[in-house]
Amino acid sequence: MSTYKLTPKPLTKEAFAAFGDVVEAGETSKESLIMINGGNTERYDSLVKVQLESPEDRAVINIFRAQPRQLPMKIEMMERHPRGSQSFHPVSGEDYLVLVADQVETLTPENLHLFLAKSTQGINYHMNTWHHPVLALGGELNKVCDFLVVDRKGEGNNCEEFFFDKNLDITIDV
Amino acid sequence: MSTYKLTPKPLTKEAFAAFGDVVEAGETSKESLIMINGGNTERYDSLVKVQLESPEDRAVINIFRAQPRQLPMKIEMMERHPRGSQSFHPVSGEDYLVLVADQVETLTPENLHLFLAKSTQGINYHMNTWHHPVLALGGELNKVCDFLVVDRKGEGNNCEEFFFDKNLDITIDV
Repeated sequence: MSTYKLTPKPLTKEAFAAFGDVVEAGETSKESLIMINGGNTERYDSLVKVQLESPEDRAVINIFRAQPRQLPMKIEMMERHPRGSQSFHPVSGEDYLVLVADQVETLTPENLHLFLAKSTQGINYHMNTWHHPVLALGGELNKVCDFLVVDRKGEGNNCEEFFFDKNLDITIDV
Repeated sequence: MSTYKLTPKPLTKEAFAAFGDVVEAGETSKESLIMINGGNTERYDSLVKVQLESPEDRAVINIFRAQPRQLPMKIEMMERHPRGSQSFHPVSGEDYLVLVADQVETLTPENLHLFLAKSTQGINYHMNTWHHPVLALGGELNKVCDFLVVDRKGEGNNCEEFFFDKNLDITIDV
């Protein structure tokens, strides 16, 4: 059995650009800043442009309530959504993990990229980007975490899965 | 001068239905609950269907960073977006106020409805619904509050404003 250990890098716009967007306010988004509401509000504009395949598709807003993952954790599969983008924004105030992969058809452990997202950072997977289902970290209290999720609703299959060979031991261990 | 004092009601789906959606997980959204990710995650599905006027429009995700309002606060105007819905979800963990109005062309103080939203509740204004610009409450620390905002980007004017007569004294005082 071959063993691969994944350790996270900090999430930055530059490091994540091949996979999607990082959604955060402040210094890293100042090129998108517009002052509105008579000076009351900073609008960090269009940090994500939602991708929809068809004019009949709808963008929808959901809440994902995720159990915290127990580390070390074995990675068995990845998924992608060929008909739309999908964004996650934490609303419970906890950091979380983001696991994505290169745009290839047959994934290997070398294609995987793991990031540690801060509680103030959301992410958006571009359409058809390989990613792991949500990886909540429950914080010190090991609590359930909520994410606001914006994705696509419409006709046709919008989820493809890839399962790694069972002889591969791919593990996240922060 | 005529004086009107606005005091908030608790935000519930039923009370807010004429104006838009309440975005929250748990008991009040159980009719939208789907289990996903092998039992790890509760998906509260399609709590908002984003409204866009034209097939050329895009849904976009922004962050609004709002200064906390100082109460009592005078209400001078309202606005509406005729070409798309607009949602707000707090990500800084603070309660906030939501002020909406009936679908009439000439607003009076009697048309106004004020709600107190919990930090775990987002809201979505349906297309063309009168509302006040974001009303952050800074909590005990009187801090700046961030909201994830999903709205519409596209051609044409998407903001109409209504200004109350200056002789009307309309005040929020929680």
